[in-house]
Amino acid sequence: MHENTLLAFIAEQVKQLPPGVLVGPGDDCAVLEASAAVMLLTTDQLIELRHFVLAGTGPIGPTGGTASSGKARSARAGQLTLEQIARKAVARSVSDIAAMGGLPRWSLGTGALPRGMSDDHARTLTAAMHHWARHFGCPMVGGDLATIDGPMVLTVAVGGVPHARRGPVLRSGARPGDVLYVTGALGGSLASGRHASFEPRIAEAHALCTLLGVALHAMMDLSDGLGLDAHRMAKASGVTIELDSAALPIHADVPPSTSPSQDRWRAALGDGEDYELLIAIDPTHPVPALCPATNTPLTRVGRVRAAGDSNASGNRKAARAGTCTVLTPDGTLDASTMGWEHH
Amino acid sequence: MHENTLLAFIAEQVKQLPPGVLVGPGDDCAVLEASAAVMLLTTDQLIELRHFVLAGTGPIGPTGGTASSGKARSARAGQLTLEQIARKAVARSVSDIAAMGGLPRWSLGTGALPRGMSDDHARTLTAAMHHWARHFGCPMVGGDLATIDGPMVLTVAVGGVPHARRGPVLRSGARPGDVLYVTGALGGSLASGRHASFEPRIAEAHALCTLLGVALHAMMDLSDGLGLDAHRMAKASGVTIELDSAALPIHADVPPSTSPSQDRWRAALGDGEDYELLIAIDPTHPVPALCPATNTPLTRVGRVRAAGDSNASGNRKAARAGTCTVLTPDGTLDASTMGWEHH
Repeated sequence: MHENTLLAFIAEQVKQLPPGVLVGPGDDCAVLEASAAVMLLTTDQLIELRHFVLAGTGPIGPTGGTASSGKARSARAGQLTLEQIARKAVARSVSDIAAMGGLPRWSLGTGALPRGMSDDHARTLTAAMHHWARHFGCPMVGGDLATIDGPMVLTVAVGGVPHARRGPVLRSGARPGDVLYVTGALGGSLASGRHASFEPRIAEAHALCTLLGVALHAMMDLSDGLGLDAHRMAKASGVTIELDSAALPIHADVPPSTSPSQDRWRAALGDGEDYELLIAIDPTHPVPALCPATNTPLTRVGRVRAAGDSNASGNRKAARAGTCTVLTPDGTLDASTMGWEHH
Repeated sequence: MHENTLLAFIAEQVKQLPPGVLVGPGDDCAVLEASAAVMLLTTDQLIELRHFVLAGTGPIGPTGGTASSGKARSARAGQLTLEQIARKAVARSVSDIAAMGGLPRWSLGTGALPRGMSDDHARTLTAAMHHWARHFGCPMVGGDLATIDGPMVLTVAVGGVPHARRGPVLRSGARPGDVLYVTGALGGSLASGRHASFEPRIAEAHALCTLLGVALHAMMDLSDGLGLDAHRMAKASGVTIELDSAALPIHADVPPSTSPSQDRWRAALGDGEDYELLIAIDPTHPVPALCPATNTPLTRVGRVRAAGDSNASGNRKAARAGTCTVLTPDGTLDASTMGWEHH
């Protein structure tokens, strides 16, 4: 791959600068008008062999991962096309902006591309990253491409603006008494391939900010599974969280249960890669069954308690702040163990 | 490496949020006050085996590059310690902000760390990235760490603000008649190891913006060698550039010439990794011999011409827009061939 050729190609992708972008790719920096007094920033990386293996038409380079010889060393990796890799790399960071109730505005993308990757593949990937960045409202205003003697790494930073009235919605805002909701349905995302085409919940989060205002106490996106992510919200908020296994909206992608240890709610708690929203809301505020604007279902999945409260099943063991438990037909589970910890 | 342990460690690094940072690492996004109406954005990546090999104390992971087994496949790679890698990953992006005359304000950093890298090494690297980001004025407000079955990749995005009065200085602003200057001295950066400890020219660029105002027409940083980078400025500005080989400030790190094909000015034009500034200035404005504030030398190295002008040596061949030539004792060279093209 010849970087200068590719950089010229990138310049073509953003020939028409989006509003507010004064200088796009090609100079030392991009130059943007600041569109709000407060900005949201996030970055994430997508790594070949770790997060995906490349599907399709044979090796992309002598030392990179290949469809034939490369194998996913992590059970999380699925076979993705270049188009899907580009989309997911952008969508994961966009989902972080949604999780704050914000709107994505710009992005910066880098690619460490396996040595020997063809110009055609590099163009496909680059064009797709630009396409999806524009699609999600955050045109790629700068970036870098370089060669790696190893697996592909895509890194996408996204900047956004918070909801004008509600401001940024943190994960640390959950309060005792809050009710917990999730958008959409959970589980089976990786096995079904849904993880490659999820819709970041930008519109839902924005509509909820407008509808609920300050009654929307806390929000985050679900990447590692509701169990582990709710545990993180509990920890950040200094509260305990209680989930009801029977209440979880289980995705149709989750296969029927074949044994008690494979209850379908376990998939909803632990599979991860849902990129739905977990939301803590003031209990006195009415909550609709569907998100305004998009009609995405909202499901009540649990509640927030003060650390030390006894739980709904009458368990007298005082829960420490930062814990999250799941009430199941068979008793109470520690939810923090039900999700993807990264090693 | 256990990511959650490391993320807790990262949270410790930014316990005291810098001014203007409302939310630091740990939530879905960082939240910042926008500190100016216009912002500068850049990102860059540093890749093991491509840009460096890890120096020191043996393997950092079974699949990663190692000091013993890893070898630089590119002649550009040098042996660097974790501290130096962290510094350079931040400094390269900071240099891009300097190249626009801006001040760095915040950064986002990601690391794809070789599987099996020890917690100690991961902490050293992470702490050093945070240290250098603070040092250069752009505290790391967010990021991501993940494991790679391959070489290390560090990506650092930096946001900054332009000079309040001058605004962003583009590389496309050079005009016929301008005089060309560089800061500092050029050449020998990789061979000497200087590339691992260069000082991004933030203070120099800022002082020049203040001193020269709108007479400062164009600026960029020199990463791939003056020859190739001046060619880029010429192309972006739609002009031709003429450099004088005899005028180049050659760094003391460049070894004495042993043959005519190894003239020391060739190193100044082609070695790259200088991270000095190339500056086009209105010829009617006086230019000091040293940068205000830092006393870094400023050296006149050439001039800007309109496309089609005959050059100083009386060569009647009309130069196309976007070309850069070097006047040498032996005749005129095409400068665009004297620098690092990336493949």
